[in-house]
Amino acid sequence: MNQRTIFFVSDQTGVTAETLGYSLLTQFDSISFRHVTVPFISSPEKAEEVVRRINQVAKVEGTKPIVFSTLVQDDIRAVISRGDCLCLDFFDAFVAPLEKELKTRSSHTTGKAHGIQDIVAYTRRIEATNFALAADDGAHTREYDQAEVILIGVSRSGKTPTSLYLALQYGVFAANYPLTDEDFERGDLPDSLKSRRQKLYGLTIEAGRLQQIRNERRPESNYSSMRQVQFEIREALALYKRYGVPFIDTTECSIEEIASTILNDTGVSRHLRP
Amino acid sequence: MNQRTIFFVSDQTGVTAETLGYSLLTQFDSISFRHVTVPFISSPEKAEEVVRRINQVAKVEGTKPIVFSTLVQDDIRAVISRGDCLCLDFFDAFVAPLEKELKTRSSHTTGKAHGIQDIVAYTRRIEATNFALAADDGAHTREYDQAEVILIGVSRSGKTPTSLYLALQYGVFAANYPLTDEDFERGDLPDSLKSRRQKLYGLTIEAGRLQQIRNERRPESNYSSMRQVQFEIREALALYKRYGVPFIDTTECSIEEIASTILNDTGVSRHLRP
Repeated sequence: MNQRTIFFVSDQTGVTAETLGYSLLTQFDSISFRHVTVPFISSPEKAEEVVRRINQVAKVEGTKPIVFSTLVQDDIRAVISRGDCLCLDFFDAFVAPLEKELKTRSSHTTGKAHGIQDIVAYTRRIEATNFALAADDGAHTREYDQAEVILIGVSRSGKTPTSLYLALQYGVFAANYPLTDEDFERGDLPDSLKSRRQKLYGLTIEAGRLQQIRNERRPESNYSSMRQVQFEIREALALYKRYGVPFIDTTECSIEEIASTILNDTGVSRHLRP
Repeated sequence: MNQRTIFFVSDQTGVTAETLGYSLLTQFDSISFRHVTVPFISSPEKAEEVVRRINQVAKVEGTKPIVFSTLVQDDIRAVISRGDCLCLDFFDAFVAPLEKELKTRSSHTTGKAHGIQDIVAYTRRIEATNFALAADDGAHTREYDQAEVILIGVSRSGKTPTSLYLALQYGVFAANYPLTDEDFERGDLPDSLKSRRQKLYGLTIEAGRLQQIRNERRPESNYSSMRQVQFEIREALALYKRYGVPFIDTTECSIEEIASTILNDTGVSRHLRP
């Protein structure tokens, strides 16, 4: 019985409503939630349709759905608020105090202008993504000059998803270089990295977790043996220490946490707003 | 003078505070904002340090900074609220009505449990990202069976960033296939796509914008000529029409909008919460 239906309603993509709602719902972990995202509700007519769905759920389940919404226009919000639900709209909650403090009226317009700002942001993001792909796994060391940060770490420590996330979320140019036996036998970083020491950021991971990840990929191999995994992690940490490379243990971190920590530790700027 | 400083303060990464704050600030486009993200404020002592920064800014600028925060713990929030600022905390605003409606107390704990749920989500995300990379640009058509959606479109219409975004944001397995002269000369989709017609989703883009993008990449080439660009777009649209492939014009869309529209149109589920 302890299940509730959640609607994320937005005049745009719904990402902000989802972000808001999920953060709040983690605070109520004894209840199980069913989620419905309803994006692009840009007219009162579309909102009426959503209200019919909400009321239908309320009737069938016998409890009010909870609605997290990001609706800029008052008329659309008014329609939703007539539904048989708990409505938590986030413009509703925060626009008034902001207007007061900023001594100006908000524009109350749906969506962004899609002007030059958006094209700049879009281009930056695409360029950063292409950069991350081109500079993945040490493919093109000549691109290190363009990189804002160079992630280093052993295979499967999280470099590729982190560099892609930095590109897509923040427009940051992140290269990555995999530390392998070749580096460990030489006992040193390659020259291409030593000369760019101030851009390096290390990833590490607990041996047990890394073994598990590698084992799914290549079971029963030297690559996924505990001995090899422990060796690589130890050698990588020794290099981080020797060159003063800051690093993060990714074992219990989400990609957001890894990315945010890297920006915080390195001072690299966010080029995009989320 | 019309500039205000914004602090995003969080006990975690700050992504939620940034997402919420930026959505609200787009409503006040006559004012220019300076942004400072302060993540991982997990103790009252760290919060005191933030308050010193806030008060310093207030003193220098002569206006109150605006603080968007996502702070779960009451004691940390209490410290921030003593700063010389407008504090908009989003747990503060919404937890009380949720507790009332759900008839249960919220857990008031910072961060997530980092339990099995997180490992499942992390693994899904990494797998989806690796899948998008492996199934990029039609490299491995045998992977189409695993794909939840197959994006098709001409070169530089936005397939790769969109499939990576679907992977990182939603854990969705998205492959992509570039429509090229080979397909247009044959006047048909390849068999590997025809047999998976229900998974296809098309991207299109305005000729002027595509030419601009291609021209930055390969100036003065046939690839970036208006004639070639118009030809490819027209032929791609003809194929979408012939096979009833739903499609989106990406010209004025952000990657979030493209991704959200695809999920909405196809009914593919989000596997991850944002």
